[in-house]
Amino acid sequence: MPPLSHIRRDLDFLLHDWLGTAGEGAQVDRETIDALLDLSEQFASEGFLSHHKAADIEEPRLEEDGVHVHPAIGPALRQYADLGLFSAGFAPDLGGLGLPYSACSASFALFAAANVATAAYPMLTVANARLIATFGSRAQIDTFARPQIDGRWFGTMCLSEPQAGSSLADVRTRAVAEGSDSLGERYRLVGNKMWISGGDQDVSENIVHLVLAKIPDLEGALPPGSKSISLFIVPKILPDGSRNDVAVAGLNHKMGYRGTANCLLNLGEKAGATGWLVGEPGDGLRQMFQMMNEARIGVGIGAAALAMRGYGLSLDYARERLQGRPPGATGGGPVRIIDHADVRHMLLQQKCYAEGALALCLYCAKLVDAHEDEDAAELLGLLTPIAKSWPSEFGLAANDLAIQVHGGYGYTRDFDVEQLYRDNRLNPIHEGTTGIQAIDLVGRKLLRGNGAGYAVLRQRVAAACARGAGSDLEDAAAAVEEGWHRIDAAVDQLRTIGTPNALENATSFLRAFGHATLAWLWLDMALAAGSSSAVGAGKSYACRYFAATELPKIEAWLAPVGSAFELASGMPEEAF
Amino acid sequence: MPPLSHIRRDLDFLLHDWLGTAGEGAQVDRETIDALLDLSEQFASEGFLSHHKAADIEEPRLEEDGVHVHPAIGPALRQYADLGLFSAGFAPDLGGLGLPYSACSASFALFAAANVATAAYPMLTVANARLIATFGSRAQIDTFARPQIDGRWFGTMCLSEPQAGSSLADVRTRAVAEGSDSLGERYRLVGNKMWISGGDQDVSENIVHLVLAKIPDLEGALPPGSKSISLFIVPKILPDGSRNDVAVAGLNHKMGYRGTANCLLNLGEKAGATGWLVGEPGDGLRQMFQMMNEARIGVGIGAAALAMRGYGLSLDYARERLQGRPPGATGGGPVRIIDHADVRHMLLQQKCYAEGALALCLYCAKLVDAHEDEDAAELLGLLTPIAKSWPSEFGLAANDLAIQVHGGYGYTRDFDVEQLYRDNRLNPIHEGTTGIQAIDLVGRKLLRGNGAGYAVLRQRVAAACARGAGSDLEDAAAAVEEGWHRIDAAVDQLRTIGTPNALENATSFLRAFGHATLAWLWLDMALAAGSSSAVGAGKSYACRYFAATELPKIEAWLAPVGSAFELASGMPEEAF
Repeated sequence: MPPLSHIRRDLDFLLHDWLGTAGEGAQVDRETIDALLDLSEQFASEGFLSHHKAADIEEPRLEEDGVHVHPAIGPALRQYADLGLFSAGFAPDLGGLGLPYSACSASFALFAAANVATAAYPMLTVANARLIATFGSRAQIDTFARPQIDGRWFGTMCLSEPQAGSSLADVRTRAVAEGSDSLGERYRLVGNKMWISGGDQDVSENIVHLVLAKIPDLEGALPPGSKSISLFIVPKILPDGSRNDVAVAGLNHKMGYRGTANCLLNLGEKAGATGWLVGEPGDGLRQMFQMMNEARIGVGIGAAALAMRGYGLSLDYARERLQGRPPGATGGGPVRIIDHADVRHMLLQQKCYAEGALALCLYCAKLVDAHEDEDAAELLGLLTPIAKSWPSEFGLAANDLAIQVHGGYGYTRDFDVEQLYRDNRLNPIHEGTTGIQAIDLVGRKLLRGNGAGYAVLRQRVAAACARGAGSDLEDAAAAVEEGWHRIDAAVDQLRTIGTPNALENATSFLRAFGHATLAWLWLDMALAAGSSSAVGAGKSYACRYFAATELPKIEAWLAPVGSAFELASGMPEEAF
Repeated sequence: MPPLSHIRRDLDFLLHDWLGTAGEGAQVDRETIDALLDLSEQFASEGFLSHHKAADIEEPRLEEDGVHVHPAIGPALRQYADLGLFSAGFAPDLGGLGLPYSACSASFALFAAANVATAAYPMLTVANARLIATFGSRAQIDTFARPQIDGRWFGTMCLSEPQAGSSLADVRTRAVAEGSDSLGERYRLVGNKMWISGGDQDVSENIVHLVLAKIPDLEGALPPGSKSISLFIVPKILPDGSRNDVAVAGLNHKMGYRGTANCLLNLGEKAGATGWLVGEPGDGLRQMFQMMNEARIGVGIGAAALAMRGYGLSLDYARERLQGRPPGATGGGPVRIIDHADVRHMLLQQKCYAEGALALCLYCAKLVDAHEDEDAAELLGLLTPIAKSWPSEFGLAANDLAIQVHGGYGYTRDFDVEQLYRDNRLNPIHEGTTGIQAIDLVGRKLLRGNGAGYAVLRQRVAAACARGAGSDLEDAAAAVEEGWHRIDAAVDQLRTIGTPNALENATSFLRAFGHATLAWLWLDMALAAGSSSAVGAGKSYACRYFAATELPKIEAWLAPVGSAFELASGMPEEAF
């Protein structure tokens, strides 16, 4: 099969048959979306997939003049720019086509499936430009966002530091006011930024770093906490053409995702890096959350896309590889391994994880498009930690199964599933680990808010279950409904006990909540798909499979939630 | 902490406090075992761990004169031989020390924790020699087993072929009788053998290949099925000093486990490789099962050892790394991450998986030592697929958690957990995939046998639960008992429906059976440990944690077992 045909078929289903992205009442017609996806599928195969393995073998290297990435990455991204793919989602007054985020996300999924490491550059660049477009001044937008929308400059997000990974309150990068100019309040920044994807490369004309830093108080001390964090635009090359004081101190050598240069940056080895304040002092984390949320959905899409490609590859392999015979067969030639029960289960489980993850992310992308609707915005906030974590965890599990379907061959570097698995292992870590997403879900979204997002979610779940009752998916609908009653009870319990106890088993709760969410989405998709087509039959089988084999896991994950506080936290340290 | 101290502490507990390997009634005293483990811990750190990363970076390479492995591997294995570690488990009349298999397995675990790829060579060599010692003639033992027991020659197992991986019935290697000599019936072999670990290397003086092949019938055809497979000894260098007709056709480039050269071997590119029949024609698979079973437990030990090392590394890291604050804290410096709930859970879950897997394998090793007891032999047969698959699956999961505890650092090649995870990913594949183990458990061990192994297991489980009742592990004991009632019901159901339906969800059943087995072992260990020492408190916490958070998963895995046949097998192929 053509390498991206499987994910393309699913994207068509999701956008058109399920989400209704085009057509009546939508801001775009089907022809436009199809043209975007045709173009993306073809160019992703030709320009991105073609160096997926090569850029894994030949990693970025740091030389005197900066970081050099694999030579195929530059031409691929310049063509990506020429095709208008950086700008597609921006409004026309910013030089874009104004396409919906859901359509752009589907396009991005094709590139991520082909080569997630190369796709990371435009993902970050687009999110960076969107942040500046939202919070920056007119001059900042024209100077720093527009060249990124054109794809000539790339962008980064500089949050973590060696001593401050998940804990941004502890950033030590210091920004000292220096005056102002046409680009706004100007500062000198000194500090170290770790894990900067695209922190340096030899592809784009310039790099726009968005940097979290603290402004010292009158005594010169950095105020504690995250509310004192501000956001600065720190370009690699200053508007006057000179080099800013940003140095690459080292490259991180990763298990996978190697085409993306990941750097330790030193700001201010000399006189201090020049940066311009975005918005107001102390508003940095709030503003950065827009980019973080976009990146979290982007990570989810990437993880889902890797899962989809592994699923397609293992499906192709299972249809061709001859091995063994059905149980009890006496004689006869070997059969294709897709005819063995265990392999079928591994394929169907992958389908549940991969297509489910993609559906979740596009559903969230659709919510982004509807963000002016208050319900959609509340639901998006609630689902974002799921859209980040569920594809990352279960997309990786899908890639694990893709290797297993290949047997020993899948463990060798001659088959692509090996690299997909290594690439995907990053996703539960960056942009907030799974544990951080769990704290976000339980602590921020469920316990601290007004419960509006959860109420919207429950309405939509109930509506799908009501549609399922009496259909041929009746059993699955009943199981989904029952699963959500269990989640309701757990949420009530978490609200009753409050923090810190509610956070004790947050990750286990996140998994249960994620699976319950996916069970609902599978039901919703299967109901929309009908069962007359091959795609529809697939959705129907996968929905029932998920309800029968995956949904029961939520009981196990919920078992310790709301009790069992002492099992981990009470354990004496020397007993580990 | 010293790199292997964590696994060493656990081995001491398992052998002495739990299994009672030494002392009254045992064939060895505690001082001997302690000396073996002291020696092993020290030399594993100095001679094996020291090149774990280097041999991952510098892979084996194939040159004109054969395969060259990393230069540190040869000296390490020669010292391993000099220390008597190849021979330790063999009877004195074969040049060994007659140490119990359980003690040798504990020693092996230390080497596997340090460097699983280098440890693979002696693991295969010892199992190869033991097979020849069991089934070979006196001359074959003297000629081919003794140099392996001395550690001068190494051994392989040549089962798979490119078209015959899991399906050994389809091997096409052809063995034509040529006469006989002092070494037995001599044959000429022609065929291709795939995935041969240690298939060639530049370390040992000679290599003893144990090769499965078929003897053609009078018409020259190879009989179908696995009952026509015979076993041959095919040395790399013949007794007269000339090279046998065995050529390395290629090396497999793996995700991990790279220090072990893995080869495609061509037998008979010229006149045919010379091999000597072991035992009777057609008895090959039965004989090879001895080596396969030993290798399966060896894989389990390796997977457990990798999990133990990852656990120790992430525990050390969690005790040092400062990040974040407890929920609700206002101000104060960052705390060690071991003080965060999510990290504690990830550590305790690793402890459950890693120490549980090690306990399972040593329990099985103890059964090997007691193999003349019929109950022990039956129980060993039943547990072997669990000892292979459970550590492989959950040891890998433990290494995944070890990376997650390290955050972004764990994803880089600067930290060892990254490699442990890649190394461990092989284990669910080789020596019979998890799916193959599931078929073995359900099809062969539970449905086809007389049920004796299961009866022994249930007696031992019931005894542990009875001891637990009324103790401070009462709740855990009750949960274990309840879990096993669910397994009983599932086994009855599988026996009722029979094959092929019983095999439909065999892998899911295997996971449930494995977790139930581990819950029993954790209970048994915790009861033996008491809770007065740090080790004992750890076992007690882990036992209760496993019962509270892991055991509930068996319900989910059992959900489709015995029903739900149509969900995967009934799905139209085009719907995938």
